[in-house]
Amino acid sequence: MMGYQAIVKGIRPLDEKAVSAAKNRMDNLIKPIGSLGRLEDIAIQLAGVTGKVKNKFEKKCTVVMSADNGVMDEGVSAAPQVVTLIQTGNMFKGICGINVLSRQAGADVRIVDIGINGEIDCPGLIRKKIRPGTSNMAKGPAMSRDEAIQAIETGMEVVSGLVEEGYDLLGTGEMGIGNTSTSSAVLMSLSGCSAEVAVGKGAGLTEEDFTKKKRVIETALHVNKPDKNDPIDVLAKVGGFDIAGLVGCYLAAAFHRVPIVVDGFISAVAALVAARISPLAREYMIPSHFSAEPGVEYLMKEIGLEPMLLLKMRLGEGTGCPLMFHVIESAAAVMRDMATFEEGAIESETLVDIRE
Amino acid sequence: MMGYQAIVKGIRPLDEKAVSAAKNRMDNLIKPIGSLGRLEDIAIQLAGVTGKVKNKFEKKCTVVMSADNGVMDEGVSAAPQVVTLIQTGNMFKGICGINVLSRQAGADVRIVDIGINGEIDCPGLIRKKIRPGTSNMAKGPAMSRDEAIQAIETGMEVVSGLVEEGYDLLGTGEMGIGNTSTSSAVLMSLSGCSAEVAVGKGAGLTEEDFTKKKRVIETALHVNKPDKNDPIDVLAKVGGFDIAGLVGCYLAAAFHRVPIVVDGFISAVAALVAARISPLAREYMIPSHFSAEPGVEYLMKEIGLEPMLLLKMRLGEGTGCPLMFHVIESAAAVMRDMATFEEGAIESETLVDIRE
Repeated sequence: MMGYQAIVKGIRPLDEKAVSAAKNRMDNLIKPIGSLGRLEDIAIQLAGVTGKVKNKFEKKCTVVMSADNGVMDEGVSAAPQVVTLIQTGNMFKGICGINVLSRQAGADVRIVDIGINGEIDCPGLIRKKIRPGTSNMAKGPAMSRDEAIQAIETGMEVVSGLVEEGYDLLGTGEMGIGNTSTSSAVLMSLSGCSAEVAVGKGAGLTEEDFTKKKRVIETALHVNKPDKNDPIDVLAKVGGFDIAGLVGCYLAAAFHRVPIVVDGFISAVAALVAARISPLAREYMIPSHFSAEPGVEYLMKEIGLEPMLLLKMRLGEGTGCPLMFHVIESAAAVMRDMATFEEGAIESETLVDIRE
Repeated sequence: MMGYQAIVKGIRPLDEKAVSAAKNRMDNLIKPIGSLGRLEDIAIQLAGVTGKVKNKFEKKCTVVMSADNGVMDEGVSAAPQVVTLIQTGNMFKGICGINVLSRQAGADVRIVDIGINGEIDCPGLIRKKIRPGTSNMAKGPAMSRDEAIQAIETGMEVVSGLVEEGYDLLGTGEMGIGNTSTSSAVLMSLSGCSAEVAVGKGAGLTEEDFTKKKRVIETALHVNKPDKNDPIDVLAKVGGFDIAGLVGCYLAAAFHRVPIVVDGFISAVAALVAARISPLAREYMIPSHFSAEPGVEYLMKEIGLEPMLLLKMRLGEGTGCPLMFHVIESAAAVMRDMATFEEGAIESETLVDIRE
């Protein structure tokens, strides 16, 4: 297995030759130039990612990183910690949001126990537990630096395995009660923004608990003093195993030149960390929806991504990814299957140029 | 065939019992309440439309109304009129945006010649030409009141036929050079907004031509003085056969209780007319994307719809519909296939309630 350094150093820019050929073809399809908007951008990006102008995705999968967070000791979430374990188990019954939406999209789901506080007996679960939950970041570092790198390498290993199996379009999801708190802490550390910008109410917090949540996150930053110029330090001190695992997924997808979809707030925080580790990794990411978590707009700008689905979703699990797979496959179909003016003319009458 | 009045009078409200049962089920699925955002709204709306809590769509189709516009005499578009004929023909070759996106969505396309200026020989074309293009609205009414009703009834007949064939999810599209001008004129008449709000540059107009386009539309309104309280009068005087046909599609879909997707600017103007004719018709519409045409935000608010896809598309043809079909089918799958807390508990351990 390749280690962290080898993968990070092995990430290359998009294939500019393919990008340029794709742009050229897109501008010659029988439609006004630019009239398919973001579908055109995606189709061109896909060419840069894979090196081929025409793409078709055969195997799609969302990776769900499941882990618990020690900061739950501070009462930052309305749901109890055991929900991480239970919902991860339910994903194996195929009855959760990510299962249903993935089936609809013809996509698979792979679930990784990267740090659940408890054991579930599900064939198919990828067992990579670093530890049964992080430590409480309000009292000290959530994990050691070595553990952070181990969690990133876990994500890398999972994605490398999927690529080997033939998966060519990936998504990122998570399950971990308390992970909006760790995500907000990572975002605040890396960007310098305030708790007012980065912290949301999660699922059903009262006003009082919301104030407490912000205070706990500020305490965690004060206690740990993460170095904003060292993304691994930030991840280790105030992140979670789920976020770290997803960082590894993004980096490995970029390394293997496979497009990878960003889901909501937590998944996007992991994307920000990955982009801080390797700015080139961003070129391989495709955003999906604007989650209802308030910090997400600021966060997406910080990464430089512009989501396309306005669905007011805030479930997590990677649920934005299967919805976005369809848009991505549609973009690829436009590039592949629409005719150029020239191709049209061969078949029939001379086409009037409607490009402008 | 049922006539205009019978269909308009036959439109009923959503099935409130099904809506209420659907809300109840949605709030009991294993996820925090409301966390699937707009997907939840759509799934509940679908229940009201069909009368069933659980829906699955077997046959999907976008109807493309193709027609020419007499206002082209005034030079309001960068593309020549013959493009309507040529692109409609290309749709039968399966090489246009709407074809490619529909195949990707497993959906069909039906194309109606409701007023093309010219003839194409394509088996499968629904031949319902009212006349080879409307008259120039800058000089007088685009069509007579009878023609407007005939065009609406054409749309109704097409949709009734599709419902008979078993289509259970519909979309609306159009092809007609010059139809952003007629659409802007209809929007301005019905809402009283200014040309600054309602008129866009279409595909590639220069600044000078853009100024002319606004002036031509204002002239058409001045010459015809459409009655804003009489949607048919507005449609006849400053609309087009394509828009009128789509109005009939919306009304008939509501009558038959089949969900129907709104595409971009022109399709949404037709939706506005339909909603002015029968406010209940709006309950059967599902918006798709925020088109790049500038008037669309104002227009969508006027109808009371909030699009969900931010794709900066402005191609028309109905291209937003097949993209939205996937979101709608995903919403239906959530309602159908996610487990409730109760269903989950039957199978296994007692579930902790994560609804709040």
